[in-house]
Amino acid sequence: MTTGAVSSAVSPVAIVCGNGRLPLQVAEAATARGRPVFLLGIVGIADPAIERFPHTWIKLGQGGRAHRLLTERGCREVCFIGGLTRPSLSSLSFDWRTIRLAGRVAKLFIGGDDKLLSGIIDLVETEGGLKVVAPHDVAPEILAPAGPIGRREPSAAELADIRLGLDCLRAMSAHDVGQAVVVGRGRVLAVEAAEGTDAMVDRVAELRRVGRIRLPDGTGVLVKAPKAGQDRRIDLPALGPRTVLGAERARLAGVAITAGAAVVADPVELVAVADRAGLFVYGIPGEGV
Amino acid sequence: MTTGAVSSAVSPVAIVCGNGRLPLQVAEAATARGRPVFLLGIVGIADPAIERFPHTWIKLGQGGRAHRLLTERGCREVCFIGGLTRPSLSSLSFDWRTIRLAGRVAKLFIGGDDKLLSGIIDLVETEGGLKVVAPHDVAPEILAPAGPIGRREPSAAELADIRLGLDCLRAMSAHDVGQAVVVGRGRVLAVEAAEGTDAMVDRVAELRRVGRIRLPDGTGVLVKAPKAGQDRRIDLPALGPRTVLGAERARLAGVAITAGAAVVADPVELVAVADRAGLFVYGIPGEGV
Repeated sequence: MTTGAVSSAVSPVAIVCGNGRLPLQVAEAATARGRPVFLLGIVGIADPAIERFPHTWIKLGQGGRAHRLLTERGCREVCFIGGLTRPSLSSLSFDWRTIRLAGRVAKLFIGGDDKLLSGIIDLVETEGGLKVVAPHDVAPEILAPAGPIGRREPSAAELADIRLGLDCLRAMSAHDVGQAVVVGRGRVLAVEAAEGTDAMVDRVAELRRVGRIRLPDGTGVLVKAPKAGQDRRIDLPALGPRTVLGAERARLAGVAITAGAAVVADPVELVAVADRAGLFVYGIPGEGV
Repeated sequence: MTTGAVSSAVSPVAIVCGNGRLPLQVAEAATARGRPVFLLGIVGIADPAIERFPHTWIKLGQGGRAHRLLTERGCREVCFIGGLTRPSLSSLSFDWRTIRLAGRVAKLFIGGDDKLLSGIIDLVETEGGLKVVAPHDVAPEILAPAGPIGRREPSAAELADIRLGLDCLRAMSAHDVGQAVVVGRGRVLAVEAAEGTDAMVDRVAELRRVGRIRLPDGTGVLVKAPKAGQDRRIDLPALGPRTVLGAERARLAGVAITAGAAVVADPVELVAVADRAGLFVYGIPGEGV
């Protein structure tokens, strides 16, 4: 019965998997630390590669089925990781248990992302009896470190732009507005809201192309930070190679994210992309820059 | 010598004309009030229709020439009106007087729009000996009135979105970020920076088309307000029929601007467009909503 004792002592952490490589990184890191995992891949969104871990597939809205599966597996903790486009009510497959909660679910769809996410956490904890943990509690390896990540370091002028971007994000965050801005030479060039970070960076590329932004190539910084008061167990800002490629197309100098409060997807490829492009990727220390 | 006495008693107000119909509205209103005007059309930007008023054409950067012309005409006050894409240094035709000030001019191009504009005012006043006045000092008719402009009025929910938009703009304005946001059902959907208001509204249309914004048609409000601490003699937010047409394409419910602190271009056409589209256009009272 030793096996049974171990499995109840160390219950598997449930990982609800959105898109991208991050769910796999979390599962790998947790497994390497000796923590069993159980992955719930969201159909049509999660990478099929999650199947190499203990897993099942669920549709968005199947809260009741997910809850039953996790209970059967002995999961007591759950984390959410990977991107998820804000769903429409009609795209969800509600099961009965979720429909009973429909009034509370519907409320989540009115208001900003923060409300949506904190509402999901609240539902899972109060109705599901599960503890929502941060992916970085299970896999601290995914958090951005402080200082330069990759070869290049930001200059003093670039650090000043990073500081301005951070100040601007903090000022907006009370209103649940995006997690990213682009700043160039003391001027805020773009602010993220519903479009998402990559679309905002693409906009900077386009504004440069048409001459609406006339800064020299290689100026401008993308700054990402979590919103103030945001529940960091879920939806920390994430940075991956695709965003660095976008920053290169937008002819930025680099990308800055909050160290310890942002996750890095595919770090090896990200550094390779940044170094090849000559961009800095910088982890902003907790005290700011 | 009566004519000479009159012309020195009521010196013409100089109107530096950017694009659009607003410079003409200001010139018409000032003339109707008995104030002589002298228009300086910016080549390639101002509407050729300014030629029905006393006028001359100048190129951007010809500060010395403009100053000489205004002195010859006896102008002691100048106002700036109409849109102006942020110029690149290389697109300007600097004359010698302006080149002497080049160090100060160059500084204007580092930093946000507020710095650019307050720098221009400072240069014109200290170097040119002219007083910079607001277009609405000369033509109060161009300011937005409080309350509904057009047939439709905003609902209570729409007023709540207007309030959120205004709060968000105020929070950002210390960082010299844009003058407009789009808010829908308690969520900030888009924030204007370098792209300008019309491009931001077009983005909302596109995010709706691709399903990234899933609010029902006819929800969402464009909110425009001046930045806090902005010098209102120059660059007040402006609203014209084109922006209302954009709001219609983005399937918004309406547009709100700060009464007494925003200008309305082409008001007759604007109301016609809004009424036909069923959109509200609302002047936010000074005390807020």
